[in-house]
Amino acid sequence: MKNFIQMFFVKSHEWNFSYGIEMDFCVADLSPTAPRVNGFPCKDRANVTSKDFLFTDFRTAGNASVSGTNVYPTFATVLQYPALNTLGISHARLDFGIGGVVPPHTHPLSSETLFVVQGSILTGFVSFDGVLYAETLQKGDIYIFPKGTLHFQINVGTGPAISFNSLNSQSPGFLFAANQLLLSNIPAAVLESSLGIPNATDLNLLEASVPPFWGN
Amino acid sequence: MKNFIQMFFVKSHEWNFSYGIEMDFCVADLSPTAPRVNGFPCKDRANVTSKDFLFTDFRTAGNASVSGTNVYPTFATVLQYPALNTLGISHARLDFGIGGVVPPHTHPLSSETLFVVQGSILTGFVSFDGVLYAETLQKGDIYIFPKGTLHFQINVGTGPAISFNSLNSQSPGFLFAANQLLLSNIPAAVLESSLGIPNATDLNLLEASVPPFWGN
Amino acid sequence: MKNFIQMFFVKSHEWNFSYGIEMDFCVADLSPTAPRVNGFPCKDRANVTSKDFLFTDFRTAGNASVSGTNVYPTFATVLQYPALNTLGISHARLDFGIGGVVPPHTHPLSSETLFVVQGSILTGFVSFDGVLYAETLQKGDIYIFPKGTLHFQINVGTGPAISFNSLNSQSPGFLFAANQLLLSNIPAAVLESSLGIPNATDLNLLEASVPPFWGN
Amino acid sequence: MKNFIQMFFVKSHEWNFSYGIEMDFCVADLSPTAPRVNGFPCKDRANVTSKDFLFTDFRTAGNASVSGTNVYPTFATVLQYPALNTLGISHARLDFGIGGVVPPHTHPLSSETLFVVQGSILTGFVSFDGVLYAETLQKGDIYIFPKGTLHFQINVGTGPAISFNSLNSQSPGFLFAANQLLLSNIPAAVLESSLGIPNATDLNLLEASVPPFWGN
Amino acid sequence: MKNFIQMFFVKSHEWNFSYGIEMDFCVADLSPTAPRVNGFPCKDRANVTSKDFLFTDFRTAGNASVSGTNVYPTFATVLQYPALNTLGISHARLDFGIGGVVPPHTHPLSSETLFVVQGSILTGFVSFDGVLYAETLQKGDIYIFPKGTLHFQINVGTGPAISFNSLNSQSPGFLFAANQLLLSNIPAAVLESSLGIPNATDLNLLEASVPPFWGN
Amino acid sequence: MKNFIQMFFVKSHEWNFSYGIEMDFCVADLSPTAPRVNGFPCKDRANVTSKDFLFTDFRTAGNASVSGTNVYPTFATVLQYPALNTLGISHARLDFGIGGVVPPHTHPLSSETLFVVQGSILTGFVSFDGVLYAETLQKGDIYIFPKGTLHFQINVGTGPAISFNSLNSQSPGFLFAANQLLLSNIPAAVLESSLGIPNATDLNLLEASVPPFWGN
Repeated sequence: MKNFIQMFFVKSHEWNFSYGIEMDFCVADLSPTAPRVNGFPCKDRANVTSKDFLFTDFRTAGNASVSGTNVYPTFATVLQYPALNTLGISHARLDFGIGGVVPPHTHPLSSETLFVVQGSILTGFVSFDGVLYAETLQKGDIYIFPKGTLHFQINVGTGPAISFNSLNSQSPGFLFAANQLLLSNIPAAVLESSLGIPNATDLNLLEASVPPFWGN
Repeated sequence: MKNFIQMFFVKSHEWNFSYGIEMDFCVADLSPTAPRVNGFPCKDRANVTSKDFLFTDFRTAGNASVSGTNVYPTFATVLQYPALNTLGISHARLDFGIGGVVPPHTHPLSSETLFVVQGSILTGFVSFDGVLYAETLQKGDIYIFPKGTLHFQINVGTGPAISFNSLNSQSPGFLFAANQLLLSNIPAAVLESSLGIPNATDLNLLEASVPPFWGN
Repeated sequence: MKNFIQMFFVKSHEWNFSYGIEMDFCVADLSPTAPRVNGFPCKDRANVTSKDFLFTDFRTAGNASVSGTNVYPTFATVLQYPALNTLGISHARLDFGIGGVVPPHTHPLSSETLFVVQGSILTGFVSFDGVLYAETLQKGDIYIFPKGTLHFQINVGTGPAISFNSLNSQSPGFLFAANQLLLSNIPAAVLESSLGIPNATDLNLLEASVPPFWGN
Repeated sequence: MKNFIQMFFVKSHEWNFSYGIEMDFCVADLSPTAPRVNGFPCKDRANVTSKDFLFTDFRTAGNASVSGTNVYPTFATVLQYPALNTLGISHARLDFGIGGVVPPHTHPLSSETLFVVQGSILTGFVSFDGVLYAETLQKGDIYIFPKGTLHFQINVGTGPAISFNSLNSQSPGFLFAANQLLLSNIPAAVLESSLGIPNATDLNLLEASVPPFWGN
Repeated sequence: MKNFIQMFFVKSHEWNFSYGIEMDFCVADLSPTAPRVNGFPCKDRANVTSKDFLFTDFRTAGNASVSGTNVYPTFATVLQYPALNTLGISHARLDFGIGGVVPPHTHPLSSETLFVVQGSILTGFVSFDGVLYAETLQKGDIYIFPKGTLHFQINVGTGPAISFNSLNSQSPGFLFAANQLLLSNIPAAVLESSLGIPNATDLNLLEASVPPFWGN
Repeated sequence: MKNFIQMFFVKSHEWNFSYGIEMDFCVADLSPTAPRVNGFPCKDRANVTSKDFLFTDFRTAGNASVSGTNVYPTFATVLQYPALNTLGISHARLDFGIGGVVPPHTHPLSSETLFVVQGSILTGFVSFDGVLYAETLQKGDIYIFPKGTLHFQINVGTGPAISFNSLNSQSPGFLFAANQLLLSNIPAAVLESSLGIPNATDLNLLEASVPPFWGN
């Protein structure tokens, strides 16, 4: 019997190798010398521990007042949470000051849901054919922004608000419409025509008024 | 000038039609007479309102004590929240009583994250090659369960716990390992050999002991 | 021998049926009573002819002067060219008047190339991290706009210009940033904060200045 | 206690509904009145039985001698085996007479493996850059034809041969190069130039020589 | 004329380069120093030969008696058959002793078919909503297990049995429910609650009874 | 205020990093020492300039007369235009001499459209079930060839013709049916049976007649 078992374990070792190793997860290797592929290559599985799958940055609130529009985002994308690599999900925690606004933006690579952890938030999105769908949410509510649609949030409550946002991409992209449009060096002639602002001075004023926020 | 504008708006109407209508969202038509396709057909866009995108069932806590393992799940999949159709995301709210357990299960169609809203939860998953990755989480923490991996949760705190779970499928599937294995009429000879339980009485006892929960 | 052949042809008929019927193409059924699925159901193959695959709307130039920004688009998406259904490609012909502008916009569902058929066009896109890539093209040149990026065109030549644009989606979506941002009923408080325009009068002026074009 | 259990089962019924119904399988509804979508709609799940998942046509050998090239194919694609719908796999059994040939062909929608059940088969494929990879296989061997590559088989043994072929599409498409090229009404001028056969008589002879087989 | 031809061949060399090189196949480079990407990088095409596409391990039977449940699996996944890389298919040969059992398991990354080469096999799967679909197969029959469903096999004939299994993933994953549940160090408190076995001694006995097999 | 702004910009730098860097584009690194992955790895983003996205090879006409069938192709696939990497699109410019022919061929990895820039072109494709769909196009017309279908073109006008072709793959593959069939070293016995040409001399003549073109 023992021989059979021993033989089995020898075989078993070989069999083990046939399991889908490195196909259940692929913790991102973010080192600068890692090969540059679409997405990220995998950290050596021998060095992966249970801590790799844990993300703790959302324990503490962000300070909304340092942001130009009074909302502080804390991100959990693959860059902050490398275990997300290849798994198709990411998150953000938003801390809203009173009246805090997340300016209209799109995520080109994912749909998103917003879950209200605290407070009252007015949110909505614009469909591809230009229709606004918007609601005021209370604690416990979810709203969904289909992939690629322009959406926004504003804290309409009397105190701070917190949301927990979920996106079905490890790296959804964050394109703020006003910033991309006005602060990306698009030639003035294009903007003047597109906005119907034929006056360079007016355009410069408009560009200067956009508040800095979120590094974009 | 006015004629041009009028002509433009006539044109504009025609152009409008060229926008990607019914490609940004496709709220599920769950009526029994809808065509049976993989996923769900779309509700008539003319009847879609902003309320379709709002989900409010998570406002209220579930009663953990009515469940066999002291955890009450509230689901937000496409069946409860039809706006999720084609958008690749869903959620669950879990209300844990003290010591409450979500038995080991898999989601064959999605990865999942668990975000701790309240309390202290021990959670983990088993990789495809049989390694357990597990951690005890506190409020604000996230853990990730790669697509297809077996995972579980247990409330290890001294009071109730709440989690907000996110899955990157509108309909992730919920396969509880013990229930699928022991309560699905798999022939006794298969189970006896697979479990090393050659005695029918013992197997029957084992099958009878699995607590009913979550309707599976 | 004849019997064998006859038997063969009987068999052959049965075999014929095993070819991937309705998998090479699926000409869109755009009738209002067709089932509403993601994309479009298929026209009855028995009614498909070689004309279904031919598109002739690009034979004639559009009249740029009727558009608010002096560019007339002619579209070949699945709505104008139903044979594109399920095939992952579409086109547009752009007729530029002198100085004509295609305002900054995104296609949430596709990458795009622009091929200059006539004239000289300045075009570019803004990457997800806010960098502008732009060039002035001459006849015969191609530029590429990665999926989801904001891009624009302007005729910088001394006469009309024509481009032939290709997109790898049957229904790419056309989201004009200024129109989506300013003309979609997003609440004024959100826009005031996002643009740094605290004055309702100024915002109204800005909204009123955006030229109507392309029905969006 | 009983009340709790009753309450549980009421809840349980509701929970049951949240399982991914109609997402694990979607047996094809091949009736002529079913909606025409890409692929096939689903048979009513209430009418699905375990027999739907069973395929028995491979029990009996095909008669190779009735085929123009001495190989009889039996197919298990979604049209013969509706349970394959949405599951991404199909099969064929090939019965080879002595010297039987499967003419060079491609499957535009799938890769394929050939497993030799009996006999000795010479098989190979041509890579996209024109290199032939070919081997003579014996019983128990597998060869793989990458998606889209031209491949062929010939029985090089002294008796009949049988293969079991696997394709990773429910409906892979079967395009026989000679038949598609010579028997599809492609204009003679195109073929004359492409083949370097400037003589219509020679082309007609060539077209007439291609043996009928497999209904294509 | 010769010059034209020469020019042509020079051109031809350049053109050759525009063919989709390294897109038809990508034989896996399994060397330990290869970059760690999701899946595997490609072996240098210059070193690929026709032998790379040939797999011969299924020529010889496995010895069922060395396995804990009397079934010996021989695998042809990308790890044993590197040519499968990127091609979406793999296989297994199962040699069943009398009464041999493949315990209930899932493949998280693929659907599977079982083709009976010899003997009589009872097999089935459990749908996502807990319904068992099962049949007894004879030589020549196929049964299908939809992606992610729990399935099993047992030799119900009077002699050995052989099956040839096909999976539409190069690395499908093999998750044995009992082993993953009971032998993966999931905390005892979780298992006690999930199985309704409040007694640690009983749980230990159960865990000890699971037979070792297949290295999992 | 300044402190807030400074703090913001520090934060902003960190935030910047959370944008989907290297997910909007991935210009191909075609160097021989780059890792061999499916597709191509990315050029270092720091070295990417706006010129990478510009393609100018279509400015000049090809010389049709040097080709065996009187059509000169100029390609814009990822190998000539590395910016296409990961973006799912490519192009070709075809310069047709009088009577010039593009022989029947398939693109295994993409659908294709043909846009007539100049002249009159007869083109068509053969569906998977063997039906020819063909039309004569004039300047401005588009025809579509579904993915994997055999298609061809011939200049039927009285002067040169030019087409601009679009394919929804960065590397579509170009498989010329006659060349793959007759010039790829497929064993003579296979071809003799497949073509119904039992005479080796005739087969050799046929193979010798196929004109060299496009390096395949």
